[in-house]
Amino acid sequence: MNKSRLEAFSDGVLAVIITIMVLEMKSPGGTSLADLRPVIAVFLSYVLSFVYIGIYWNNHHHLLHATQRVNGATLWANLHLLFWLSLVPFTTAWMGENHLDSWPVAVYGIVLLLAASAYFILTRALIRIHGHGSTLATSIGSDRKGKISIAIYAAAIPLAFVQPWIAAAGYVIVAIMWLIPDRRIERRVAQ
Amino acid sequence: MNKSRLEAFSDGVLAVIITIMVLEMKSPGGTSLADLRPVIAVFLSYVLSFVYIGIYWNNHHHLLHATQRVNGATLWANLHLLFWLSLVPFTTAWMGENHLDSWPVAVYGIVLLLAASAYFILTRALIRIHGHGSTLATSIGSDRKGKISIAIYAAAIPLAFVQPWIAAAGYVIVAIMWLIPDRRIERRVAQ
Amino acid sequence: MNKSRLEAFSDGVLAVIITIMVLEMKSPGGTSLADLRPVIAVFLSYVLSFVYIGIYWNNHHHLLHATQRVNGATLWANLHLLFWLSLVPFTTAWMGENHLDSWPVAVYGIVLLLAASAYFILTRALIRIHGHGSTLATSIGSDRKGKISIAIYAAAIPLAFVQPWIAAAGYVIVAIMWLIPDRRIERRVAQ
Amino acid sequence: MNKSRLEAFSDGVLAVIITIMVLEMKSPGGTSLADLRPVIAVFLSYVLSFVYIGIYWNNHHHLLHATQRVNGATLWANLHLLFWLSLVPFTTAWMGENHLDSWPVAVYGIVLLLAASAYFILTRALIRIHGHGSTLATSIGSDRKGKISIAIYAAAIPLAFVQPWIAAAGYVIVAIMWLIPDRRIERRVAQ
Repeated sequence: MNKSRLEAFSDGVLAVIITIMVLEMKSPGGTSLADLRPVIAVFLSYVLSFVYIGIYWNNHHHLLHATQRVNGATLWANLHLLFWLSLVPFTTAWMGENHLDSWPVAVYGIVLLLAASAYFILTRALIRIHGHGSTLATSIGSDRKGKISIAIYAAAIPLAFVQPWIAAAGYVIVAIMWLIPDRRIERRVAQ
Repeated sequence: MNKSRLEAFSDGVLAVIITIMVLEMKSPGGTSLADLRPVIAVFLSYVLSFVYIGIYWNNHHHLLHATQRVNGATLWANLHLLFWLSLVPFTTAWMGENHLDSWPVAVYGIVLLLAASAYFILTRALIRIHGHGSTLATSIGSDRKGKISIAIYAAAIPLAFVQPWIAAAGYVIVAIMWLIPDRRIERRVAQ
Repeated sequence: MNKSRLEAFSDGVLAVIITIMVLEMKSPGGTSLADLRPVIAVFLSYVLSFVYIGIYWNNHHHLLHATQRVNGATLWANLHLLFWLSLVPFTTAWMGENHLDSWPVAVYGIVLLLAASAYFILTRALIRIHGHGSTLATSIGSDRKGKISIAIYAAAIPLAFVQPWIAAAGYVIVAIMWLIPDRRIERRVAQ
Repeated sequence: MNKSRLEAFSDGVLAVIITIMVLEMKSPGGTSLADLRPVIAVFLSYVLSFVYIGIYWNNHHHLLHATQRVNGATLWANLHLLFWLSLVPFTTAWMGENHLDSWPVAVYGIVLLLAASAYFILTRALIRIHGHGSTLATSIGSDRKGKISIAIYAAAIPLAFVQPWIAAAGYVIVAIMWLIPDRRIERRVAQ
């Protein structure tokens, strides 16, 4: 089975997710600068989520690039990842409209945690097909970044009930960590 | 005529359908866990519909993979399938917002039934081009799963007026049945 | 310049247009069959517009299939066509929510007329590149169907102010006329 | 790393942006011609933004056509461009609904300015990979049009507080300037 339609469908879903989030930024009633103020929190959530979807698209791109073939299990592991990412517009809107209240921030983190787990499952499903000695497997390696991300999410979710800003800072840190491009796969593929 | 644009267009439409459904999950007014409660039914409908669209994408992927060529009739049979699937966000929202009331559950089933029929028509249109002895035809075979699905939908629709939960359970059972990947075509193509 | 990105972008835009129209079908307040009644007119407009976008996708598919190369003018002629088609969700909603009132029906026709003209301009732009003796030019031929469509739209628009149902019937007739697949290009390409 | 998925993802995002903008044109309450009047300003903003997204797609198409390879930095430079373009539906709606008030017009220009800067950054990132003597670099050349656009935006933004119509005229002039197809890259690639 070939991977091109998997890529095309994932590109389509991620493109729609990243773009419809902006529909949550409602055009403000008035026309003064002050009328933009309530939009700012929504805008900042949007920036964070845009970066997250961008990171997932980037990593997905690298991962599939190193992939030779896919099977039925991979298709579902991929849909599972897309499912959690498809909830990002909802959690972004809820968090943005409520100025970092505890539950919205916690739910935002839960969806990120589940998306990260789904990505991990997808990498395992791909490694199972390609073998542990494959370019794909060695390039993913120990996936330290992925594990650190999951640990930060897991810590941030309960912290959202203590001080939501700390949890939100955790999400920002993970995003920055991933913005540094994933050279592992790039390097191995180039060899 | 080649199939690549048919695949690309179908991927695009299915990607949009699967993603815009999430727009029906409106960000709740409050920020407590209780405010999420009314969203739960919408969320569960969303999960079910996401799985259904995922199944259709998966089966469509397998079907087109075994396809060598398409013609005008196939393009319209495919658009006919996409039409019924495009109604899924509407029926999902109606069912989710009304906690499994009879009519919304019945209408949800009617759209599934019509989508399943459209898929059946598409397979017949493709077999007509490739011949009954083709890999495509033998891999579709008697299409037992498709027939069982249609029977369950047909039974569930009237049952929605007796007890909507039974009808909804029927839709869930069909989804689970299809989640087991369709190895028929995969196996035949691999030979 | 190659045509594959032109096709990909057009597929994307048409896929989004055909799918977001369904967002105009708002989930009804109640759960009885009667609550679906106001949705019916919107649904029928949706069916008509879905068929129209399907026809445009189909013809665009055939047209680009016969195309060898594109240039800057073609890209803009194509965007011009997509522009008018992108207004279809708006005119569909306006017509559907107002049960075939004169102005909504007339405006629906005006957009169809402008889309048909844009398609005509696109075919001329492509013929200019390929030459009048090309497969493309001979397969488009005199474009009788296109001319009849434009004539029906032009007649239907003023008729919308006399009796909107006659105008709407005109739009349905054009759609049915095109549903019969365009064998001209198919046949010539096959030769 | 190959550029095809970058193109596919960009096409998807641009296709969604260009199409969801039309959702801001709400179907008017009444059915008379007068009811369309409030929609006209939204419509004109939509036309302008449609042309802008079309221009970006066109230039992106030409730019990537001349591109041989991409790297991690390019992917992020591209996402950065898509980010600013994704805000266009928001600024279009705000400007259109408020009949060219100062702040909406200024914010519209700010987003255009940031998108133009992002495009400039993307061209630099690509030139860094291909070298200053490459076809890509020579075909971009001094990018006079890009610089004039940025200068007009920078002048229009403060002018929006003096007389919004002048600023809006500036945006229209830039759009017209770009509508004249960018023959530079086309010519060089053809050589």
